[in-house]
Amino acid sequence: MTARVVVLGTGRIGSMHAELLARQVPGAELAGVFDVTDSAAAIGAALGVPVAISLEDALAIDADAVAICTSTDTHVDVMIAAARAGRAIFCEKPVSLDLAQVDRGLAVIEAAGVPLQVGFNRRFDPSHRAVAHAVAGGEVGDVHICSITSRDPAPPPIAYIAVSGGIFCDMTIHDFDMARYVTGSEVVQVYATGAVRVDPAIGEAGDVDTAVVVLTHENGAITTIDNSRQAVYGYDQRVEAFGSAGMASSQNFLEANVTVATAGGVATPPLQNFFLERYTRSYLDQWAAFVDLVEGRAPSPVTGADGRAPLVIGLAAWKSVREGRPVRCDEIT
Amino acid sequence: MTARVVVLGTGRIGSMHAELLARQVPGAELAGVFDVTDSAAAIGAALGVPVAISLEDALAIDADAVAICTSTDTHVDVMIAAARAGRAIFCEKPVSLDLAQVDRGLAVIEAAGVPLQVGFNRRFDPSHRAVAHAVAGGEVGDVHICSITSRDPAPPPIAYIAVSGGIFCDMTIHDFDMARYVTGSEVVQVYATGAVRVDPAIGEAGDVDTAVVVLTHENGAITTIDNSRQAVYGYDQRVEAFGSAGMASSQNFLEANVTVATAGGVATPPLQNFFLERYTRSYLDQWAAFVDLVEGRAPSPVTGADGRAPLVIGLAAWKSVREGRPVRCDEIT
Amino acid sequence: MTARVVVLGTGRIGSMHAELLARQVPGAELAGVFDVTDSAAAIGAALGVPVAISLEDALAIDADAVAICTSTDTHVDVMIAAARAGRAIFCEKPVSLDLAQVDRGLAVIEAAGVPLQVGFNRRFDPSHRAVAHAVAGGEVGDVHICSITSRDPAPPPIAYIAVSGGIFCDMTIHDFDMARYVTGSEVVQVYATGAVRVDPAIGEAGDVDTAVVVLTHENGAITTIDNSRQAVYGYDQRVEAFGSAGMASSQNFLEANVTVATAGGVATPPLQNFFLERYTRSYLDQWAAFVDLVEGRAPSPVTGADGRAPLVIGLAAWKSVREGRPVRCDEIT
Amino acid sequence: MTARVVVLGTGRIGSMHAELLARQVPGAELAGVFDVTDSAAAIGAALGVPVAISLEDALAIDADAVAICTSTDTHVDVMIAAARAGRAIFCEKPVSLDLAQVDRGLAVIEAAGVPLQVGFNRRFDPSHRAVAHAVAGGEVGDVHICSITSRDPAPPPIAYIAVSGGIFCDMTIHDFDMARYVTGSEVVQVYATGAVRVDPAIGEAGDVDTAVVVLTHENGAITTIDNSRQAVYGYDQRVEAFGSAGMASSQNFLEANVTVATAGGVATPPLQNFFLERYTRSYLDQWAAFVDLVEGRAPSPVTGADGRAPLVIGLAAWKSVREGRPVRCDEIT
Repeated sequence: MTARVVVLGTGRIGSMHAELLARQVPGAELAGVFDVTDSAAAIGAALGVPVAISLEDALAIDADAVAICTSTDTHVDVMIAAARAGRAIFCEKPVSLDLAQVDRGLAVIEAAGVPLQVGFNRRFDPSHRAVAHAVAGGEVGDVHICSITSRDPAPPPIAYIAVSGGIFCDMTIHDFDMARYVTGSEVVQVYATGAVRVDPAIGEAGDVDTAVVVLTHENGAITTIDNSRQAVYGYDQRVEAFGSAGMASSQNFLEANVTVATAGGVATPPLQNFFLERYTRSYLDQWAAFVDLVEGRAPSPVTGADGRAPLVIGLAAWKSVREGRPVRCDEIT
Repeated sequence: MTARVVVLGTGRIGSMHAELLARQVPGAELAGVFDVTDSAAAIGAALGVPVAISLEDALAIDADAVAICTSTDTHVDVMIAAARAGRAIFCEKPVSLDLAQVDRGLAVIEAAGVPLQVGFNRRFDPSHRAVAHAVAGGEVGDVHICSITSRDPAPPPIAYIAVSGGIFCDMTIHDFDMARYVTGSEVVQVYATGAVRVDPAIGEAGDVDTAVVVLTHENGAITTIDNSRQAVYGYDQRVEAFGSAGMASSQNFLEANVTVATAGGVATPPLQNFFLERYTRSYLDQWAAFVDLVEGRAPSPVTGADGRAPLVIGLAAWKSVREGRPVRCDEIT
Repeated sequence: MTARVVVLGTGRIGSMHAELLARQVPGAELAGVFDVTDSAAAIGAALGVPVAISLEDALAIDADAVAICTSTDTHVDVMIAAARAGRAIFCEKPVSLDLAQVDRGLAVIEAAGVPLQVGFNRRFDPSHRAVAHAVAGGEVGDVHICSITSRDPAPPPIAYIAVSGGIFCDMTIHDFDMARYVTGSEVVQVYATGAVRVDPAIGEAGDVDTAVVVLTHENGAITTIDNSRQAVYGYDQRVEAFGSAGMASSQNFLEANVTVATAGGVATPPLQNFFLERYTRSYLDQWAAFVDLVEGRAPSPVTGADGRAPLVIGLAAWKSVREGRPVRCDEIT
Repeated sequence: MTARVVVLGTGRIGSMHAELLARQVPGAELAGVFDVTDSAAAIGAALGVPVAISLEDALAIDADAVAICTSTDTHVDVMIAAARAGRAIFCEKPVSLDLAQVDRGLAVIEAAGVPLQVGFNRRFDPSHRAVAHAVAGGEVGDVHICSITSRDPAPPPIAYIAVSGGIFCDMTIHDFDMARYVTGSEVVQVYATGAVRVDPAIGEAGDVDTAVVVLTHENGAITTIDNSRQAVYGYDQRVEAFGSAGMASSQNFLEANVTVATAGGVATPPLQNFFLERYTRSYLDQWAAFVDLVEGRAPSPVTGADGRAPLVIGLAAWKSVREGRPVRCDEIT
């Protein structure tokens, strides 16, 4: 059996997924590609697969599943069309920036009974996953404090930021997912603070580029998250779970594992630059899990509820920043 | 020239200081010891120095300076008596738990014109100091985020906790000092949250044992601090300064620098257990700086203002926990 | 332009190369496969390329180059046939176990004027390469000592060992290449000692499984190499160059970059298990260099002379073990 | 009970021992000092102990033990005098450069029945000791390969080198001891090679400054040692034991445990510079063990036989270099 997947949306992340599915995911096959721009044509040609000329056309391709990598504001409509076409669905994060839209989409998926996996790929990073497994396996005991550092090497284009939902719904949303994943507990309260330190244009776009968030979980754990849009030394991605029996923590990888010691000290190369290097393995394992889901061998590792919860936290974070106070998640409706 | 120092208070920290001054601090000499309990007698005998029978008696010893290591509630009165006796003053942290008392003491010291150094020893830890120096030297650029992890291996006795001023004025106060030291900027706002996770008796004593604090600095930097009274893997002391040009961070030392790799993985020993191991070097360098201060070779590295500011932050942190909101430092008077 | 490559020999390493060339090497294309066994059929089908039924047939495929991954004893004959067919040649290590055969092959290649690259992939590992570049860039100064640790996780089948040329010509030959590559200097003398510690059957096959070798280089550098066929904690691959100005050293990668600290100490996962994980990057970069060579954009990074020299060292190592004395390389003819 | 120790010889190492015994060794007391030069006077005054004017005078001081830190060529005579005076003996390494002298000394000590501990302090380094304990505890299984890197930050004065016995009897002798200590097995064969790379004056003094040694142990383990008189990045001291069940290895300490990550990479401070920093703990633990020996609470951790064996290996190493071949230890008589 092979899971045949049509990739919808062939921008930066969609074209990466298309290439992985075509070449490097055992048990998967790229069945076609589609984009509202011309970008799909070249990718389809390079990978030797059909290029759909419309969403309907794409959903008419003989396939088991779709990977929704279109712009965020179209996710829910595409998801609904795919569900009605009976396709298993992989949807990039965030599902939507609008909670009502998310709920609308999830309701249709539930009614259609098709499998859904949301693209929180970092759960599949071997290092972060090992932190979560250490917690789940009891090695850390009860989690008291979870600390997440998540910093990009450089900010995205301002045009992207303007439609991104802001740092909390675009970037920190990965960390909100990670906090839930690692602690195994829902978030009940959010305190967030942010600043514009990297680029004033980010502030002019209504966003912040530097942020600190404190989450209170249902089980009493406290999570701290710090974000920056610009870590000049590379992509800084660390997760730490501290508890009654110990601490598990994931670290970064360097570009090469080498040290040079001289009279002036010891030097190593910078961190791996960005997600394509750091998270390659996670993308492959994410697809392996999706193949298992499509083939009915395993439940969804990142459900619709897992897609919804971080959005609630992100909206609460924005409310916290605006109002200068901690905000309960049940204030977001 | 030798700086002759009388140690006042010979409990755990005072007896350590007495021994260091007697044996391991170049340019210093232990001139005598005093305690309201019997503990001074044995220490004086072991180190071969006079044992005073009263504070007056202790201040009558021919000496240049005193080290105030008595219980916190007596610091200010002892400080005032020593200042009036013309002694240079080293005072353990916190100067007092009462801001009015601190101000009363500092006023007398200023009037007397005697040197004062407050015992925030972690500034002298070579690893943390290197972080501060990297910031001061511009290697980190403008500081955007400062992260401090500070966890004890085991909680102190409940009786101690009851008079300690609580976690923020007793334990986190070191981290408040570190935040000011590393960022070089005053704190203007405090958001604190805490929980009782380690021992219910700590909660019954009115304290928390697990805490997360977010500080906003005058220069826009944001500091996160996380504390626990019990890290079973050892004394966990890390400081990280992240900024526009890079990141400097201090790590822990292991008991021994050894790894054992087997089929099951790679193992190393636990962290150094507690402050006597981890901060030995800092105590020696703290005394070296005090000798320089007493001899007039250098200004105080930790002034009265440096002693006062963290107390304000600590009081603001408690107010933040009680009221469930961020508190400005200027609300504390 | 695309470099079209036919893979000759589709055993473990050949099938890996075929897959990389078909899917992951920019500028390369897999043009066909061939093996004397049935193994080529499945691989050709999976990758969608022609399956040759004989060497002649394989050399008749329209292609720019061949990758020689057949059994070692056939390398030279295949190489000569490919050279005469005008193909650029990639040849797996060792070129041959017989020095006269190597010379015969290299003479034909030189006469034919076709490009040749020998498969010492570890030169392309980013970590080891960074050591060599630090030396070449002067960061280490004059190299005084080079230390190479190279240990496999588990021994190969005894049947393989019996035809492998023994540890020095099969396994250590990579390290001999590394020593030349890192120091940039030829080897003039070899002292080798070996033992059977892992499996008596290896000894019965006339080989050793544990070895230490000391090389003296033309420029005065001394290299130490230690090998084992079985490191239970994983594939242990480290290179260190020590010199007048400093030291550069490459370290291993762990399976995941995670630590778990508990009261018993700090634990991390094992090393990456074997070459497919550790050296993936090196294989890709090796192919990128070969594409550049085929396209005439760069000279061979691993020439015929680079293929010959380590064999001489390997033969000298065996002679050293047999005779219990250091052996000069010019004793091997 | 207090172990009263007279320090004989107050050069660099003797004065360090005197200070440690006077101030930092629980259960020990410095009973007096002696040197053939004037150096003892200042040290005795500073530490407040009697200064002997002759060896006889020193042995007349009421004491339990002596620490022999005189020049190597006098060790045996001093040792014999001390044994006859009934003193427990701590003797710095090497016991002598002349095997017959060693045997003469050990015979007298045995006849006198006084305790003897030889100054191989590195056995007491917590990191190296942890390697030895991992081996002794079976965590490494049977040891197959032991690797020791031992490099000084800078060469000693040429005048010192001239009387030192050369690198193998002066510097490598520590590593020979370490090899026996870690593997728990005697050395049966030595292959050594050396070069003058650091300073031609060292060669003119008949010594080498760069060396590699291969030891074969009775139990089949092979040890490699590499030495340099000049590692510009600091004192490089590492021990690794590799075996059937795993690997234990000790690493260096940095001057401070700090990293600075910038766009150019990650930097840390140099290694601890030399033995006074790196091996402080080992000296203290060495004295603690000697106190236990003097008080009859424990056997000698470094016996006369442990003092003799590394000298045999050192002499064999020199013979190996001169004759260009491996030398059996039983060739040294």
